[in-house]
Amino acid sequence: MHTPIYFDYNATTPIDPRVLEGMLPYLQNHFGNPSSTYSIGYRTKEAIEMARKDIANLISVEDGNVFFTSGGSEANSTILKGIAAKSSKKKHIITSSIEHPAILKTCDYLRKHHGFQITTIPVNPAGIVDVNDIERAITSQTVLVTVMMVNNEIGSIQPIKEIGNLCKKHNIHFHCDAVQAVGKIPVNLKELPIDSLSMSAHKIYGPKGVGCLYLREGVNIPPLILGGSQEFGMRSGTENVAGIVGFGIAAKIVQEDLYFNLTKIEYLRNLFLTNLHTEIEECLINGDIHASVPSTINIQISGIRGESLASMLNELGFCVSIASACSSTSSKLSHVLKAIGKTDEEIRSSIRISIGALTTEDEINQLVRHLKQSVMRLRSFSPKYQMSI
Amino acid sequence: MHTPIYFDYNATTPIDPRVLEGMLPYLQNHFGNPSSTYSIGYRTKEAIEMARKDIANLISVEDGNVFFTSGGSEANSTILKGIAAKSSKKKHIITSSIEHPAILKTCDYLRKHHGFQITTIPVNPAGIVDVNDIERAITSQTVLVTVMMVNNEIGSIQPIKEIGNLCKKHNIHFHCDAVQAVGKIPVNLKELPIDSLSMSAHKIYGPKGVGCLYLREGVNIPPLILGGSQEFGMRSGTENVAGIVGFGIAAKIVQEDLYFNLTKIEYLRNLFLTNLHTEIEECLINGDIHASVPSTINIQISGIRGESLASMLNELGFCVSIASACSSTSSKLSHVLKAIGKTDEEIRSSIRISIGALTTEDEINQLVRHLKQSVMRLRSFSPKYQMSI
Ligand SMILES: Cc1ncc(COP(=O)(O)O)c(C=O)c1O
Ligand SMILES: Cc1ncc(COP(=O)(O)O)c(C=O)c1O
Repeated sequence: MHTPIYFDYNATTPIDPRVLEGMLPYLQNHFGNPSSTYSIGYRTKEAIEMARKDIANLISVEDGNVFFTSGGSEANSTILKGIAAKSSKKKHIITSSIEHPAILKTCDYLRKHHGFQITTIPVNPAGIVDVNDIERAITSQTVLVTVMMVNNEIGSIQPIKEIGNLCKKHNIHFHCDAVQAVGKIPVNLKELPIDSLSMSAHKIYGPKGVGCLYLREGVNIPPLILGGSQEFGMRSGTENVAGIVGFGIAAKIVQEDLYFNLTKIEYLRNLFLTNLHTEIEECLINGDIHASVPSTINIQISGIRGESLASMLNELGFCVSIASACSSTSSKLSHVLKAIGKTDEEIRSSIRISIGALTTEDEINQLVRHLKQSVMRLRSFSPKYQMSI
Repeated sequence: MHTPIYFDYNATTPIDPRVLEGMLPYLQNHFGNPSSTYSIGYRTKEAIEMARKDIANLISVEDGNVFFTSGGSEANSTILKGIAAKSSKKKHIITSSIEHPAILKTCDYLRKHHGFQITTIPVNPAGIVDVNDIERAITSQTVLVTVMMVNNEIGSIQPIKEIGNLCKKHNIHFHCDAVQAVGKIPVNLKELPIDSLSMSAHKIYGPKGVGCLYLREGVNIPPLILGGSQEFGMRSGTENVAGIVGFGIAAKIVQEDLYFNLTKIEYLRNLFLTNLHTEIEECLINGDIHASVPSTINIQISGIRGESLASMLNELGFCVSIASACSSTSSKLSHVLKAIGKTDEEIRSSIRISIGALTTEDEINQLVRHLKQSVMRLRSFSPKYQMSI
């Protein structure tokens, strides 16, 4: 099997070789438990603290406010359940209709089992929430607003600064799931009034199974996982040292390469779309490219099934996604595409292409070529298109 | 710096080179998201399922009942909080006084914030709970009994079968933290009536940051981490594929080597103790070697401070522990040694030596030699011993 041509960077990314190289010593000689008092323990402790600095740096916060977790989902569960556990009186949470399941399902859990009321703010066809809608939804009971920075399926960028300011004004905790934002757009918490933020290493060329939760100074929640009081007591369990080290290096690299990648990926996205529209008729963008990160392209191709197209492309050696990878096992239709107003039929004929740091112009050209062939083949089975061949 | 001579296998273990070798492809080419539908995603999914089989095999359960977590602490938090969340009426938990903080602190959390009553069963000087004490503690309100299989500080082995049978009789969920047991003694769930069990990879020559929770068929709890419904919905978050693969290989290896290692380690332990008693006077075992795994040796050496001894040994290139590594940051005195009746003074003069698969006879001899020198030096500062030099 050839190495596939990868167009699913939003699902996960390959580990950068420099990241792996930096991790390896911690999978070999430097194996001490960071809580140990002897030198090989101290060494891993230091490595964790270095990584914490690099990650804090990426989002412009103090390193003491960054807590390592096993990933974005754990970070999201920690803050949502943590805020809820602390809030004995106020029982209202505001979120958006296009959040990741790690947010939506946790909200649902809090609704079902802890008496919380959840208001889900709709989005416009570009996949953006209206800050006024959030303001109108706020009540004296609202304890938390949680809105993601960048959506994983359509790439839409939310008005985080405005939402943050609104929450600040009303003294409501504002959590932001930034798993799909960091490394793709600048995320500067000196300029963004965010109280807590989630990240995940495997979306930025780091390893799977490690992430972090940033908590603004003064935010106090009970930990999700209790025990040996690692992570300043905020998250117990022996640290995934190699994973954390890898996360740190990945953070450093994406920070350095941010503007270069952003420009390159925007160029590739434009190239792709130009070719796509030239080569394939009746192709539509889901969402709005002017309101989205350039790395995410969600397209609707009439007359085909996204599933069949993705599987045909897979056989040709291309990886594309039919929905958020995180929910593709639960064969439900994308709640994000629904939220931007797509019909079931439109959703079924959609695929997501996501571009990353390693994508080349040649790969884009190959993708368009094979996409065209596959679409033509699939359309040849479709009554509507049979006339045209 | 020389590679230190490691005597802290209970804190963590080095990764077996075969484990790392098996992990590497999943840190390189095989990077697909296991939830993806294309081939490189399917490949990682398969790797996870293979690891699940190897781990299930190690404890003789069905693989469908094993759920990967980020470690032993998460597994413990998941089951304790999960059982508690489901139990709206019965609010009594029974545990032992020598559990790991991941159990004790979670119990304490449930007591403080969810109205649970916690009964902490004492242990005898060997560090063993009396099953009759547990039976007497059971009330109509008891919903959970949680007792570890092997203690991390003194190695004492609990009467798990008897506790399990008791719980079965009273229809109470029995959770067993087996983090320090698997790989050290046979753990066969066909013969042990356990409802849930925790494991951690980094204690069995696997990577840090991965573990699992076994749940007996029919046990239903809400997940701790919600989201993309990975792990059959029991634990969301993109899987730590490389970590899980490593855990699987580690499980296979410790299973194969179990009896060989057990015999070897028992021999080394006996060698150590014989030499120790010959070379150093006024040395006492904390706990009872006949009731413990041979890999854990907790000793009290009168006239010295464990802390000073450990740090002196560290400078000579030996890693030993003064308490459970997991709690050494919180400079409190060992709750385990307290529980077996040791005075503060006795606890302060104790160290833990733990032996593993890589320990050699030569290392044992070196340790005794340097231990003797260090103890003599430290005792030379102690008023009580100054006379004898
Ligand atoms: C008995 C016991 N339980 C639980 C744990 C926690 O496991 P982990 O470090 O994988 O979270 C440990 C070790 O740290 C342990 O010794
Ligand atoms: C927006 C968003 N949030 C959270 C997550 C979950 O992160 P992780 O897989 O590290 O748990 C993902 C990806 O899976 C995501 O895209």
